[in-house]
Amino acid sequence: MAAARHSTLDFMLSATADCNAIFKSLQSIFQKEGMTETIHNWENHGYLATYVNKNGCFANLRIYLHGLVLVDVQSCNDLNEREETEQLLNKVEEKMKELFHKSIKRIKRLPVIMRGDAIDRYWPTADGRLVEYDIDEVVYDEESVYQNIKILHSKQFGNILILSGDVNLAESDLAYTKAIMGSGKEDYTNKEVLILGGGDGGILYEIVKLKPKMVTMVEIDQMVIDGCRKYMRKTCGDVLDNIKGECYQLWGCNPGLGWLDETTRQVLIEDCIPVLKRYAKEERMFDYVINDLTAIPISTSPEEDSTWEFLRMILDLSMRVLKPDGKYFTQGNCVNLTEALSLYEEQLGRLYCPVEFSKEVVCVPSYMELWVFYTIWKKTDI
Amino acid sequence: MAAARHSTLDFMLSATADCNAIFKSLQSIFQKEGMTETIHNWENHGYLATYVNKNGCFANLRIYLHGLVLVDVQSCNDLNEREETEQLLNKVEEKMKELFHKSIKRIKRLPVIMRGDAIDRYWPTADGRLVEYDIDEVVYDEESVYQNIKILHSKQFGNILILSGDVNLAESDLAYTKAIMGSGKEDYTNKEVLILGGGDGGILYEIVKLKPKMVTMVEIDQMVIDGCRKYMRKTCGDVLDNIKGECYQLWGCNPGLGWLDETTRQVLIEDCIPVLKRYAKEERMFDYVINDLTAIPISTSPEEDSTWEFLRMILDLSMRVLKPDGKYFTQGNCVNLTEALSLYEEQLGRLYCPVEFSKEVVCVPSYMELWVFYTIWKKTDI
Repeated sequence: MAAARHSTLDFMLSATADCNAIFKSLQSIFQKEGMTETIHNWENHGYLATYVNKNGCFANLRIYLHGLVLVDVQSCNDLNEREETEQLLNKVEEKMKELFHKSIKRIKRLPVIMRGDAIDRYWPTADGRLVEYDIDEVVYDEESVYQNIKILHSKQFGNILILSGDVNLAESDLAYTKAIMGSGKEDYTNKEVLILGGGDGGILYEIVKLKPKMVTMVEIDQMVIDGCRKYMRKTCGDVLDNIKGECYQLWGCNPGLGWLDETTRQVLIEDCIPVLKRYAKEERMFDYVINDLTAIPISTSPEEDSTWEFLRMILDLSMRVLKPDGKYFTQGNCVNLTEALSLYEEQLGRLYCPVEFSKEVVCVPSYMELWVFYTIWKKTDI
Repeated sequence: MAAARHSTLDFMLSATADCNAIFKSLQSIFQKEGMTETIHNWENHGYLATYVNKNGCFANLRIYLHGLVLVDVQSCNDLNEREETEQLLNKVEEKMKELFHKSIKRIKRLPVIMRGDAIDRYWPTADGRLVEYDIDEVVYDEESVYQNIKILHSKQFGNILILSGDVNLAESDLAYTKAIMGSGKEDYTNKEVLILGGGDGGILYEIVKLKPKMVTMVEIDQMVIDGCRKYMRKTCGDVLDNIKGECYQLWGCNPGLGWLDETTRQVLIEDCIPVLKRYAKEERMFDYVINDLTAIPISTSPEEDSTWEFLRMILDLSMRVLKPDGKYFTQGNCVNLTEALSLYEEQLGRLYCPVEFSKEVVCVPSYMELWVFYTIWKKTDI
């Protein structure tokens, strides 16, 4: 499907705008392109002129009284129209410079926004900023019973796993995996490790290299594992190829979809809550619990939202299966969401046992924002 | 000055659009808001409806025949209008979902784009992508004779130095400084170091910690030094406070502006080319030359552009003042600009002496793209 190209060109003038003069000067540029004009003149709010050409392209010229002049051009994504739009905007820019010269405080032309393209390049950050990725291919795009799973190829970051619109992990993001494993300060040799979530296989792959005694991973969404096994090899290596290795075991939830090779595998169908409950009952204990389930909720208050309750339940159960000197690692959220992070830290004071925590801010390449990671441990009375 | 808020809402439909039906269904939503309608109907290119309200707000509804429906709303940045716009777009989204349900392939609402705001949050990447920064304050904004110098405050990255629109360095970007110093693999103790550029003081500050014999820094733009000394303290520490330290000396070019404390300082007015030439003539040799002048040119061919000639001249002169076992460090450009990087590497084969090089890709937090750094050394015949 053909996308539309949305171009913008903005002028901030230092003087209050003489709307009529600006309008008259720019009008001829659009008219020379054979565009048909429609004008709206607010008495107290300036001008809007809309220009339409024969090929389905249109432009808005919006002049605000306080000296803001905004031009938008929307056109089809073919080469001719691209060039015509660039030339049109160049002419407008030249004319404005000629007219206002030193009273222009700023000229801003944003990179063209592609709208309705087959490949969606816009994936906002957790703190709600607009960022464009260098995506050039849709590698995988499926709906599981839990979420939409996309794996998109970025020229610089490699394949990126995007779950229901949230950038989860790219092949470039070893920094994420290292951070959620304790930033290289832990000795995993001969340790018992529990991973909650982690379907991309990154944590499992890195820990297995460190000769643990046993790693148990509980991922609810089999389709994430299946997608990542195929398309995130730089992240997971071959660790997702088998449900069991010498020192690891995967548990997934598999609603009728199955491991690719179903004949040789049997997977327990359950999410991490019942697994944690069973371990707690069996008094099975771990040296490390790594929660890679999801970022902490953004803003709803803990009183209102069941997500916080779920999160606290996981934390509580995790503490129950954690050895007295064990450590619990998890991601928080982006460093800018200070309110969400504070709420999370409040929750840590409401667990069945007293805990202490530290946090670290890490740059994860594909996130385009700094990310907070937590280490939590049981408070000992010394 | 009041900014305008530009909101977008896009629908990709799987079936070819019945423009008229879509238009009729959405029309009433805008009309109920008391907006005045103007319609343009292309025979072969779909519809454009423009809606205008009394407060200077306007909306475009563009329906493309191939099933793309784009809505734009531009309004003033006051709270009432923000809410009204959100509600309007919510109604459009609900209506579209009701009408097309399963034949909507994608709904996309980008974060609102602020246009003409006093604080500009949009600083495109070197590879031309649109990214919004979390800028909340303009700390410094001056024109030097060489460039526009901005220092903007980012909530997560700290202060960011932006030279003529290019993000240079943020206080979060120790990764840049480490990379251009050889990524911790070099021993600077008792070494002679020459820094070309580096006006933010980051490299100087880090190297001085490592007890070099003497670091000489040649920065053409005194105003960069002055701005960074004040507002990039996390990057430069106190190293720019004095023109000379125990083991360093700054040379700046100072066209009438002067060091803040002019009485005690005398600065040679010259850029790095004559300095390099004099060192070459004097046969003064360095263990390390660090070129922190600018990213390599983006795309113009070396035959056409004098920038490449300048770059080659600096490289040639740098090699002349480099000890036989010395190293030359420099930034390249973003990893996606492969053509520019190749052209640069070609230049390395055209120097007066044969050289070898290695490169490294590094994530610099505030860049929002991966960056290439080069290490270059003289080829020895062994």
